Amino acid sequence: MAAVDTTGNILVTGANRGIGLELIKQLAVKMGGEAHIYACCREPEGPGAEALREVATKCPGKITIIKLDVADEDSMSTAARTVSEKIAAGGLNLLINNAAINKPASPAPLSATTKKDMMDVYETNVVGPHDANILVSLCVPGNKMSCRRAAIINLSTMVSSIEKCPETFSTAQMYPYRTSKAALNMLTRCQALDFKNHNILVAAIHPGWVLTRSLSSRAPLGCGGTGDFHHGCAADKSAATV
Amino acid sequence: MAAVDTTGNILVTGANRGIGLELIKQLAVKMGGEAHIYACCREPEGPGAEALREVATKCPGKITIIKLDVADEDSMSTAARTVSEKIAAGGLNLLINNAAINKPASPAPLSATTKKDMMDVYETNVVGPHDANILVSLCVPGNKMSCRRAAIINLSTMVSSIEKCPETFSTAQMYPYRTSKAALNMLTRCQALDFKNHNILVAAIHPGWVLTRSLSSRAPLGCGGTGDFHHGCAADKSAATV
Ligand SMILES: NC(=O)c1ccc[n+]([C@@H]2O[C@H](COP(=O)([O-])OP(=O)(O)OC[C@H]3O[C@@H](n4cnc5c(N)ncnc54)[C@H](OP(=O)(O)O)[C@@H]3O)[C@@H](O)[C@H]2O)c1
Ligand SMILES: NC(=O)c1ccc[n+]([C@@H]2O[C@H](COP(=O)([O-])OP(=O)(O)OC[C@H]3O[C@@H](n4cnc5c(N)ncnc54)[C@H](OP(=O)(O)O)[C@@H]3O)[C@@H](O)[C@H]2O)c1
Repeated sequence: MAAVDTTGNILVTGANRGIGLELIKQLAVKMGGEAHIYACCREPEGPGAEALREVATKCPGKITIIKLDVADEDSMSTAARTVSEKIAAGGLNLLINNAAINKPASPAPLSATTKKDMMDVYETNVVGPHDANILVSLCVPGNKMSCRRAAIINLSTMVSSIEKCPETFSTAQMYPYRTSKAALNMLTRCQALDFKNHNILVAAIHPGWVLTRSLSSRAPLGCGGTGDFHHGCAADKSAATV
Repeated sequence: MAAVDTTGNILVTGANRGIGLELIKQLAVKMGGEAHIYACCREPEGPGAEALREVATKCPGKITIIKLDVADEDSMSTAARTVSEKIAAGGLNLLINNAAINKPASPAPLSATTKKDMMDVYETNVVGPHDANILVSLCVPGNKMSCRRAAIINLSTMVSSIEKCPETFSTAQMYPYRTSKAALNMLTRCQALDFKNHNILVAAIHPGWVLTRSLSSRAPLGCGGTGDFHHGCAADKSAATV
């Protein structure tokens, strides 16, 4: 987390559990006095956001929970409007596109994969971050940078690597997830070139193999209270990572 | 074309114009006596397939035109059933996933790109070849190879390269197309690993920069009667390729 500017406004998608929730916890501890976190999730009032609400309560004035379904354009516009009103001239400094799905359940062989799986996973994992460009505009009003150097971080994965595919394919085929994350890497490259003029840094990261709900119990890293979370570490590179 | 087995049954998607039509023309000339081409297109009876119908008429007994919309699962099943009945025990030897779309029109900057563009392009360019796996089963009845060594060729493109992205991005952003083709490369890698046991070769190729309807007049190669078509050649590598 040290390399990231945690002194401004930060928005994280899929912040109610898994890596997203852990990011919120760690950011809340490390961020500066003026910083504010917009923790987005699909159901802010639902049982799935209880842990996030607890974190927000423990850090008064630091975290605002925002309703956001990244697969829903209207939800994206509404969230962008809400955040825009709250941050006013401050701008957004860090956008973390973390929300993602992986279906059907791993190992997800071709025979178990439907067209709907392919479309749904792409919609959330790629079109979500694509549509989140509406949030990027909060950093660039009138096409001029009005805030500190901003960054977009897209949560990618080791299994998005075409080169490394043979290392993990036999245990986890995951066609929809792998194709979506390869596409996300391209989206990241395009955004990086596009937003260079606005001095916005765009990067894709593999967060390491972390034990979260979508993943098997073989993951060497825990998070969300079940163990240590090491941001940016590739964990056991010889093990299957998602 | 020399490296490809043109002695068996061949299926090409999007065969009514552009590179697909040119492939049919060249395959019809080069293939062996027993070979047969299944030339697929969305509207076999429509004006857009007139050139294909002419080619089929000029090569009696060599080409069967099949109705296939790769973005429509029912159309895919119907086409697979029709081809299956026609080829009977012969199996399919070569499947060329050529059909693709590119929208919005190039240069397709981010500001002109909608969620629908992203979803539609992925559906045709990636989920189409994914769903075409139903055709692959024609080569592998009962999970055993019953035909000669079969191959799947996915038409990719130079602009699917994340590494080469900076060379062409400023003139043609094409977010939906680039992300879809990066995903297609991953799909190809997965299929190659998956179908190895069945001795089916899977490869992605960049066909060169060819003047077709979707492309600008700056392409150095013509096809479909407008000039020479050089299969597998990367044309002017310094020029923008799609
Ligand atoms: N865990 C790993 O080992 C690992 C490895 C490599 C990369 N990653 C990447 O890291 C990121 C987080 O992974 P994770 O393991 O923490 O996943 P996770 O535990 O499954 O959590 C996914 C999060 O995304 C949210 N989400 C899903 N669809 C959404 C939508 N349409 N709109 C808004 N939120 C949505 C979920 O919310 P709900 O509660 O509403 O479903 C949840 O908060 C993902 O991008 C993943 O690909 C993870
Ligand atoms: N031309 C180049 O320089 C170039 C460079 C690199 C890669 N490529 C790749 O080469 C392939 C052919 O490109 P092209 O330039 O020949 O394209 P094109 O002239 O635009 O032709 C596209 C073909 O795909 C068909 N198609 C589109 N959507 C379809 C669907 N849902 N179902 C069935 N058919 C569909 C079109 O049929 P309709 O007539 O019904 O629309 C047409 O026959 C593509 O995969 C492209 O990405 C081309």
